[in-house]
Amino acid sequence: MSSTFRWICESTDGQARAGTLHTAHGPVQTPTFMPVGTAGTVKAMTMDAVRSTGAGIVLGNTYHLMLRPGAERVKRLGGLHKFMDWSGPILTDSGGFQVMSLGALRKLDQDGVTFQSHIDGSKHRLDPQRSTDIQHALDATITMCFDECPALPAAPEAIAASMRMSMRWAARSREAFIQREGYGQFGIVQGGTEPELRAESVKALTDIGFEGYAIGGLAVGEGQELMFSTLDVTTPLMPNDKPRYLMGVGTPDDLLGSVMRGVDMFDCVMPTRAGRTARAYTERGHINLRNARFALDARPLSPHCDCLACTRHSRAYLHHLFRADEILGPMLLTWHNLAYYQRLMRGIRAAIVDGTLEAHAAHLRAEWQAGDWSEDEVPQPLIPPVA
Amino acid sequence: MSSTFRWICESTDGQARAGTLHTAHGPVQTPTFMPVGTAGTVKAMTMDAVRSTGAGIVLGNTYHLMLRPGAERVKRLGGLHKFMDWSGPILTDSGGFQVMSLGALRKLDQDGVTFQSHIDGSKHRLDPQRSTDIQHALDATITMCFDECPALPAAPEAIAASMRMSMRWAARSREAFIQREGYGQFGIVQGGTEPELRAESVKALTDIGFEGYAIGGLAVGEGQELMFSTLDVTTPLMPNDKPRYLMGVGTPDDLLGSVMRGVDMFDCVMPTRAGRTARAYTERGHINLRNARFALDARPLSPHCDCLACTRHSRAYLHHLFRADEILGPMLLTWHNLAYYQRLMRGIRAAIVDGTLEAHAAHLRAEWQAGDWSEDEVPQPLIPPVA
Repeated sequence: MSSTFRWICESTDGQARAGTLHTAHGPVQTPTFMPVGTAGTVKAMTMDAVRSTGAGIVLGNTYHLMLRPGAERVKRLGGLHKFMDWSGPILTDSGGFQVMSLGALRKLDQDGVTFQSHIDGSKHRLDPQRSTDIQHALDATITMCFDECPALPAAPEAIAASMRMSMRWAARSREAFIQREGYGQFGIVQGGTEPELRAESVKALTDIGFEGYAIGGLAVGEGQELMFSTLDVTTPLMPNDKPRYLMGVGTPDDLLGSVMRGVDMFDCVMPTRAGRTARAYTERGHINLRNARFALDARPLSPHCDCLACTRHSRAYLHHLFRADEILGPMLLTWHNLAYYQRLMRGIRAAIVDGTLEAHAAHLRAEWQAGDWSEDEVPQPLIPPVA
Repeated sequence: MSSTFRWICESTDGQARAGTLHTAHGPVQTPTFMPVGTAGTVKAMTMDAVRSTGAGIVLGNTYHLMLRPGAERVKRLGGLHKFMDWSGPILTDSGGFQVMSLGALRKLDQDGVTFQSHIDGSKHRLDPQRSTDIQHALDATITMCFDECPALPAAPEAIAASMRMSMRWAARSREAFIQREGYGQFGIVQGGTEPELRAESVKALTDIGFEGYAIGGLAVGEGQELMFSTLDVTTPLMPNDKPRYLMGVGTPDDLLGSVMRGVDMFDCVMPTRAGRTARAYTERGHINLRNARFALDARPLSPHCDCLACTRHSRAYLHHLFRADEILGPMLLTWHNLAYYQRLMRGIRAAIVDGTLEAHAAHLRAEWQAGDWSEDEVPQPLIPPVA
């Protein structure tokens, strides 16, 4: 099999698609969730642990890596794959989203953004050329276009102007991108929640032509309903033969609803960040392990999970670790949450292949709604109950 | 092989002994270093990682565990082994050392200590009976006697009075200890740096009779020279057929010198604490990974180490993780330091068996003195040098 960068659709069920993304760094089954490895590490995880969850592709952040340790340094050390011990595909964002979030520390112009480092106040600039160069230096398998992502709500004229600037930047990002076998670059559809602007953005990007297309500017405060309705009018306009990536999303329910609207790829800090704040995701929704009711709960977090936390430890132990501020708490719970997210995506993919996604979705939602397992439900205690 | 608790000496070389400690939770080759698992976790490590270093026995702290999560809770959850996922032997300290360190928060009397929790100010009491009961509830493989450990320097009369109280407490601890097949209790020799007091303490403890004997009250500020000279006059008085444990020690050089003076077991927070503060131990001494000179160092920490940090990552990556305050930094470096400590102990043990300990010690010390490997010395870079 050649290492050409391409996405092959294998099954569809409604708008949902099951496929495989082929890259220079190996294949990835889609729909897929990409764990976030902001600064060259998926926080609190070894890469062996990340691999054990079944993750196929991880994300790195251009903004963080350009400031520390610096893209040229990563390049001298053999690239991001070697640096962080991940031989599979890596997608890097463009830095745009983080830079826009800097507020007073950044100054936007028609060609790019000048900003101060949040670490040491030093001055930097990102524009389509520099962002693309940095992602090249990092050796990203998938490079993202440099764009602006306006906060919502915003006036339609402001969103339109921003989107059109992002489209000009997309053309410049494409010019800056050096084609390599098995590598790809994604354009980013903008336009807020305005259907006409989303359509205009898709047209602008497909006219340029990319290996994949992302949907940006969502999950920025508009709520799930508006996000879904925007997807409803956007994904049908996007090329059928290219992967679609919804940036920065989301909850398990967001992922499910978005896959059913034709999205193939996701990234979000939610499972990793939650893992550091004692929030556990399971088939039965989410629970906070600091809660006193887990102090003597001898059951595993989830009876369906093969992560280290679930196969070796009780909820009571995890509760103790978080109460005692032990590093192992975030380590085990991040592992668990990523294992859950990957298991969720595998289950959704299998249902697409089987043509049973509607029923599977109804089942997932009913289980989330049911809430945590009661004492007399399925989960076998790891430890025999005390007489 | 029965599970009787016993230590079998297999080889001696000078005062040094190589043996095996047989316990209800499996055998441990000695000399051995016990990683410290204060609150039911070896900080920043999974137990799989601890096992991978070759550690045979770990330590738990009675003081921390009695306050959080509480010994009765650990018992209800199946004991400390199950709680923390360690099926091998566990030694618990008596709580005495930590309680004595509380200063104004504790009040000593002839029967025990009343103190306030450093966590929530709640009032607690430890005495020989309670300490032994707690260690029983935790299901410690090796229970330590409750004792007082005076800070050095101190007046000989004060040390004598403290030691004699500890000996009375040792008798009460022994009465409180419930004998079980494969479990043991260690008495703790006190007496500061006074040879006569150490001799008196050994006599008092051997008159009671324990499964092993610890040396307490050292590594509390007296310096290596006084510690070694105290060992020189103490270990020869201790039973030859019982394991000897030097509490709270120490640096690699401390371990080597103490093994050569007849010690079999050690515990210390040094390798784990150092792992959280960027200090790496190697065959060539120690280095601090935050130092700027490691920013582009593509070599592994040590060419002799099979830990995850050394087999997958460069020093430059570890440097980056510590500079960026990433949790993976302490995770990888704790792993490395524990792997080094275990490798050190295995090497020392092999030299005892071979009868070459003097030469091995000279080699170890020369390497520590030599300092970190230079660029043109042994360590192969993980990553080819940039042209």
